[in-house]
Amino acid sequence: MSLVVVGSIAFDAVTTPFGERERMLGGSAVHFSLAASFFTDVRVVGPVGEDFGEDEYAVLHARGVNTDDIEHVEGGQTFFWRGHYDYDLNTAHTDETQLNVFGEFKPKLSEESKQAENLFLANIQPDLQREVRGQCEATRFVGLDSMNLWIDIARDSLKETISQVDVVLLNDAEIRMLTEEPNLMRAAREVMAMGPRVVVAKRGEYGAALITEDGFFALPAFPLEAVMDPTGAGDSFAGGFLGYLSAQDDWIGATSLRRAMTYGSVIASFNVEEFGTERVSRLTRDEIDERFDAFRRMTALEA
Amino acid sequence: MSLVVVGSIAFDAVTTPFGERERMLGGSAVHFSLAASFFTDVRVVGPVGEDFGEDEYAVLHARGVNTDDIEHVEGGQTFFWRGHYDYDLNTAHTDETQLNVFGEFKPKLSEESKQAENLFLANIQPDLQREVRGQCEATRFVGLDSMNLWIDIARDSLKETISQVDVVLLNDAEIRMLTEEPNLMRAAREVMAMGPRVVVAKRGEYGAALITEDGFFALPAFPLEAVMDPTGAGDSFAGGFLGYLSAQDDWIGATSLRRAMTYGSVIASFNVEEFGTERVSRLTRDEIDERFDAFRRMTALEA
Repeated sequence: MSLVVVGSIAFDAVTTPFGERERMLGGSAVHFSLAASFFTDVRVVGPVGEDFGEDEYAVLHARGVNTDDIEHVEGGQTFFWRGHYDYDLNTAHTDETQLNVFGEFKPKLSEESKQAENLFLANIQPDLQREVRGQCEATRFVGLDSMNLWIDIARDSLKETISQVDVVLLNDAEIRMLTEEPNLMRAAREVMAMGPRVVVAKRGEYGAALITEDGFFALPAFPLEAVMDPTGAGDSFAGGFLGYLSAQDDWIGATSLRRAMTYGSVIASFNVEEFGTERVSRLTRDEIDERFDAFRRMTALEA
Repeated sequence: MSLVVVGSIAFDAVTTPFGERERMLGGSAVHFSLAASFFTDVRVVGPVGEDFGEDEYAVLHARGVNTDDIEHVEGGQTFFWRGHYDYDLNTAHTDETQLNVFGEFKPKLSEESKQAENLFLANIQPDLQREVRGQCEATRFVGLDSMNLWIDIARDSLKETISQVDVVLLNDAEIRMLTEEPNLMRAAREVMAMGPRVVVAKRGEYGAALITEDGFFALPAFPLEAVMDPTGAGDSFAGGFLGYLSAQDDWIGATSLRRAMTYGSVIASFNVEEFGTERVSRLTRDEIDERFDAFRRMTALEA
């Protein structure tokens, strides 16, 4: 089964206490696609400018990601983000944002993308997310990510979009902010009351929690001794999570969801070990399986 | 086997968004003792004033806690703490502290306490902790808690004390602060390099992580829909954790440690459901076992 992701394709300039990169491939749709590509067929939708070339396509193609729906805007420049992290790697500080071609983005999906069984709406303006949702059949599931900015300035639109999806992934602080409910469990239930069946609360270095109508599951982040760059960790998590679910017949079953949480955490943990897409680009399925087993040992009550 | 705890015995005045209490039994040694009493014989050491009476002893005796080493100071008043929590229940705000009899506390342990196999040094001044450590045989293990205050004003003394214990329990921020190492895994290894074999990083609503030379284990906090008062959660965790270990022949084994983490989390989760010692005072072993099983289901990779 195939999975379509709509989101940003970007060049990032990032400085962390452990190094810097002046221009590297990034964006939510890119990190998501690479992560999901280990488990399912992925199609990526988003705009790029003239500065986006063969080297960038090659990273996606090497992982088998279908780029037919990348819109190449003549005379435009690709979305650009510059940011830095201090020793608290949980918080990204934005120094510069150039929307460029992303400012005029009007998603037009190909027939193949419209017919994909699974859809992920990465963090973009919620009206745009809804427009994409309307174009897609997505007969199995639709997932959504968002951010505090849209909760601030487009809350009603975001709630309307959330009512049309099955899986919501947000930081735990964003779930509280969206629902104005300080207790995470109650806040997650309020999100489910809007429509979704699955809520994932991302918790940065503390991992992630999964809340469904009849269950709760939480997983710590993989304990790394060296985190180089957390950019894209949330999107890599989402890609591993929904990529795995896209390939499961019983995607909504508790075991599928828990395994998906673990695969999401595995890919995110590799993502942050190096800058941008560097580590995930050369990741192998064996490495993924090995770390999945490490997670299993790490969380088992009987050692 | 028996477990001695040295720490504060207090009256607390607490306000949270969900209610308030003007004067209730509290203190690290009290919360610890009650929690540990479900698993092992406990002896509590600490000073109280004339205001500490039969009602307070009754709470401890009802759980079988040995109070022979509570020092009753004639003409003195019991340690008093007043604090409040806002909606972020992870942060306690101190409004008033009256050290009272605790200001002059010179621990003198009975022969029975000196010969106990296991010892817990709750959060008190590190010189005092070391003095107690010196009085005890503690042929199996010594555990220690501390706080940011002592890292600030008595760092060298605290490090010296840590070098004489087996198990360190601290908030994750305190472990980073103590070692000046932002990465938790490296920070925990630095603590182990001082002497201890086990480091537990308490993470508030995110649960707790266990780091040993050859292992890592992490557990989320129990997902509660109503937290009334987090006061004593860390001490209840420590009491459940070390109380369970005190009763295990192989206390340093991975399975013992992981089960102990779970029992600690179980007791802490009950503790915060009501004010002070209210909930744990009437807790039953059946309720503990039921929630232990809920933890097992909640963290199992195969649902």
